[in-house]
Amino acid sequence: MTYSCFKAYFPLLLLNVLFLHIDCMSISAYTLERQRIMKSEESDMFGSSLVLNKQEGLISDILIKAKRAEIEDSRVNGTIFPPAINFFESKKLIDSSKVFQIIKRMPKGGALHTHGSAITSLDWLVKNVTYRANCYMCHDNQGHLQMHFYDTPPQPSYCQWESVQHVRERSGNALLFDQQLIKNISIIVDDPHSTYVTVNDVWRRFGLYFKIVNGLYRYTPIFKDYLQQALREFEEDNVQYIEIRATLSPLYELDGSKHDQEHKLLTYRDTVNDYMAAHPDFIGCKLIQSGIRFFKRDDILDDIKSYVKYQQKYSDIIRGFDLIGQEGPGKPLSYYLDDLLYPSTLDPPVSVPYFFHAGETDWEGSQVDLSLVDAVLLNTSRIGHGFALYKHPEVMKMLKQKDIAIEVNPISNQVLKLVEDLRNHGAITMFANDYPLVVGSDDPAAWGALPQSHDFYMAYMAMTREDAGLEVLKQLAINSMQYSAMTSSEKMEAMKKWERKWNEFIIEILRQHSHDGQLIG
Amino acid sequence: MTYSCFKAYFPLLLLNVLFLHIDCMSISAYTLERQRIMKSEESDMFGSSLVLNKQEGLISDILIKAKRAEIEDSRVNGTIFPPAINFFESKKLIDSSKVFQIIKRMPKGGALHTHGSAITSLDWLVKNVTYRANCYMCHDNQGHLQMHFYDTPPQPSYCQWESVQHVRERSGNALLFDQQLIKNISIIVDDPHSTYVTVNDVWRRFGLYFKIVNGLYRYTPIFKDYLQQALREFEEDNVQYIEIRATLSPLYELDGSKHDQEHKLLTYRDTVNDYMAAHPDFIGCKLIQSGIRFFKRDDILDDIKSYVKYQQKYSDIIRGFDLIGQEGPGKPLSYYLDDLLYPSTLDPPVSVPYFFHAGETDWEGSQVDLSLVDAVLLNTSRIGHGFALYKHPEVMKMLKQKDIAIEVNPISNQVLKLVEDLRNHGAITMFANDYPLVVGSDDPAAWGALPQSHDFYMAYMAMTREDAGLEVLKQLAINSMQYSAMTSSEKMEAMKKWERKWNEFIIEILRQHSHDGQLIG
Repeated sequence: MTYSCFKAYFPLLLLNVLFLHIDCMSISAYTLERQRIMKSEESDMFGSSLVLNKQEGLISDILIKAKRAEIEDSRVNGTIFPPAINFFESKKLIDSSKVFQIIKRMPKGGALHTHGSAITSLDWLVKNVTYRANCYMCHDNQGHLQMHFYDTPPQPSYCQWESVQHVRERSGNALLFDQQLIKNISIIVDDPHSTYVTVNDVWRRFGLYFKIVNGLYRYTPIFKDYLQQALREFEEDNVQYIEIRATLSPLYELDGSKHDQEHKLLTYRDTVNDYMAAHPDFIGCKLIQSGIRFFKRDDILDDIKSYVKYQQKYSDIIRGFDLIGQEGPGKPLSYYLDDLLYPSTLDPPVSVPYFFHAGETDWEGSQVDLSLVDAVLLNTSRIGHGFALYKHPEVMKMLKQKDIAIEVNPISNQVLKLVEDLRNHGAITMFANDYPLVVGSDDPAAWGALPQSHDFYMAYMAMTREDAGLEVLKQLAINSMQYSAMTSSEKMEAMKKWERKWNEFIIEILRQHSHDGQLIG
Repeated sequence: MTYSCFKAYFPLLLLNVLFLHIDCMSISAYTLERQRIMKSEESDMFGSSLVLNKQEGLISDILIKAKRAEIEDSRVNGTIFPPAINFFESKKLIDSSKVFQIIKRMPKGGALHTHGSAITSLDWLVKNVTYRANCYMCHDNQGHLQMHFYDTPPQPSYCQWESVQHVRERSGNALLFDQQLIKNISIIVDDPHSTYVTVNDVWRRFGLYFKIVNGLYRYTPIFKDYLQQALREFEEDNVQYIEIRATLSPLYELDGSKHDQEHKLLTYRDTVNDYMAAHPDFIGCKLIQSGIRFFKRDDILDDIKSYVKYQQKYSDIIRGFDLIGQEGPGKPLSYYLDDLLYPSTLDPPVSVPYFFHAGETDWEGSQVDLSLVDAVLLNTSRIGHGFALYKHPEVMKMLKQKDIAIEVNPISNQVLKLVEDLRNHGAITMFANDYPLVVGSDDPAAWGALPQSHDFYMAYMAMTREDAGLEVLKQLAINSMQYSAMTSSEKMEAMKKWERKWNEFIIEILRQHSHDGQLIG
């Protein structure tokens, strides 16, 4: 069928693609031009440069089929699409998703964006840690829960410490008590939409979470177990490597005495080494030392000086520096500029690898939003969140030029109220234009997410096209090593360990589905 | 202060901007490079090519100051930021905003994206139309309200028609009755978040709105008044021009008889002409004839044939063709491709100006999402919504090349559940990269918004930088004429009428603020 005269545009390849306005176009020319556009967008997509082998291609087809089924059911029949609603409400739905089951089983490489206080499940913390001797709890004068280990607890009037064991016994129902405790520590609520109206509301609650957990896990013996348990949970979620944003806040002992920063680094290192010795498939754990973006400039300068002091001596465990804490009302990077430039003023100058949080905000053009500019100018190795990046065309250009990876944390951004429906997430532009991305989980324990799987599900389902397949997930896994703080040789070693797992995964999924008969037809 | 060795990137202008990695950078070089990035982003912004005169600059400063105050209060103190929550809940907050007061007073040019059934306030519809003789209401067998004019209403068992006058009298409280009626017709609910969980939930209710309003306003004498009232309300909101997506569904008379399509076009034309005669500052009203994207292909082909038949004869009133209705589960443009190409197969071929809705969806890569590709290939003059455009880099390139304007409808996209916090709206990318944009209100009467002011407020506050000023709003107003369906000479006439109002506005606001002493210091 040929149409005599239909206006459309043909691509004409000169130096650039120009569009030539013509008046006559056949339906076949229309179809060709349509295909050209779609192919062009396909090749712009994150993961599109990966070539999947035949077996991977089969799994990709299974994935896309399952993805399509979930999406189309919601699109046409109006069933709830999990990434569109708060994770507190969608978690159960996700857990029954076929796409999610595959993602869970998939070796996801490393987790590059996590915080030390929120990497071990609350379930373990409550059912293991709070059952130990010398664990105390109280409610402060604002009614907020606090927990701590003591030989003899202090007795200030504003916080009457009681042994958790006693309170649990008194409750008469340990199971219910523990469930309630998990709920009280986490930021999970039944109605997140009305409980947390503004981003500040949820961060206030989030601050309480940190206070409670810090009280528990900074007790030295607990800290070791906590970290080991974290590594175990990440490995069980098929994550083989982790980078932790960690403050050097001291660990404590039962008598209230506090250790120094070096002790913490040593404890981190030794605990990781112990774990590695027993788990040869695990790749490792590195720290990104972190200051708090509400603290005074002097404090941050001290943090940086500590980093400079330790970075050579503990180069096996610390690999960079960052500032953490709620960005919205916090201090922008520019506020600390002189301090952040301090290492470069030394003689000889010291190069500090920065891994800045930036753009974790909806406030376009505000001073905190502009930290994205400073992060890039300060030569950051990656950007934590970068949620607002798409509002900054020039910064985006520079990111691509400098090959700076963006750590996307879907669930965090949702529950901490930057975005509700994750199909509106700022990183979608980055996925559509093949930016260097990794997916992180930020603080999975605070909202009951798995170490990486739930976030991978969100990114895959909400931020990529209906027909994007395994190449997206594989690229995310590869990037998580490529853009890590590991050295080149460590990366090579890491890739080998991951590839072994990856190949096992491919074989296992194919076997499962050939049994199901799903690969036939 | 000079830093001996700090890694950063300098722009080097060759053919393109390349980034040169250097090891030494002074703080002044840092500052210069920071300014370069920010300037570059500023000049990428929508409206940045407009040069404001001195008086406009003063008003821009007033606006930015007010905008900043609202934003910073929310950012730092956590007060509710109106665009972040559902319009049903934010409207009251907006009405007390200083930014909004200025926007309301501002001549906004034309409204290019509205639908015929939702342009006249429900307040007027209830307090005027439903008080007229022969107005009937019933609740159908699903409990849904219906309204209609009859001399003698039919008496089917599933819908017992009663005179509205009787029901109102029986209620004993006309004021309360009317308030309840407005609430029943609109889609406004007290708790939109839990009432409308999915996009399909709210569209179901939206369908009921149309059914009720269509029953009322398609009665010929009401239709004329309804349209006149719409034009009055738009003009009162400082909108001087309107383009209405309109079906050619027939008007009716009391005895149930229906007129033909031509009668509707004539009624539109004559009513607009009557209004224009009495309101010399008004620029005009044009129609974009619209088919329904759930209908059979034959029906759409018939619609297009009607358009072809009428477009010459009624060129003073109809100016284009579109398909309307919920896109998510609806038919994509590609489904109707042969029908949409039909005019080009005629001998001689007929050129139909299309103004397609496309990309009003969160379903990336679904068949409806791909209507964006077809809209551009079908040479659309503008794109209605284009919410999903930023997920389509190649389509975006073509849009810029072809200078196709995007009709952004912030509140519609929020209340119809494409996005909750408007700081996550898809058009932000377009604002940041200076795409040709206009702001529309879609169906303001259905959710109690002013004709254009609330949507302008949302776009300005949520989709542009904290420091973006009057240039954004002025560019939107200019674009609304530039990208309208008016002829060149009509556009020139329109610009004159608008400029007169614009100059009055500038003088008035300056006078107000000089009295307030706000221009001093």
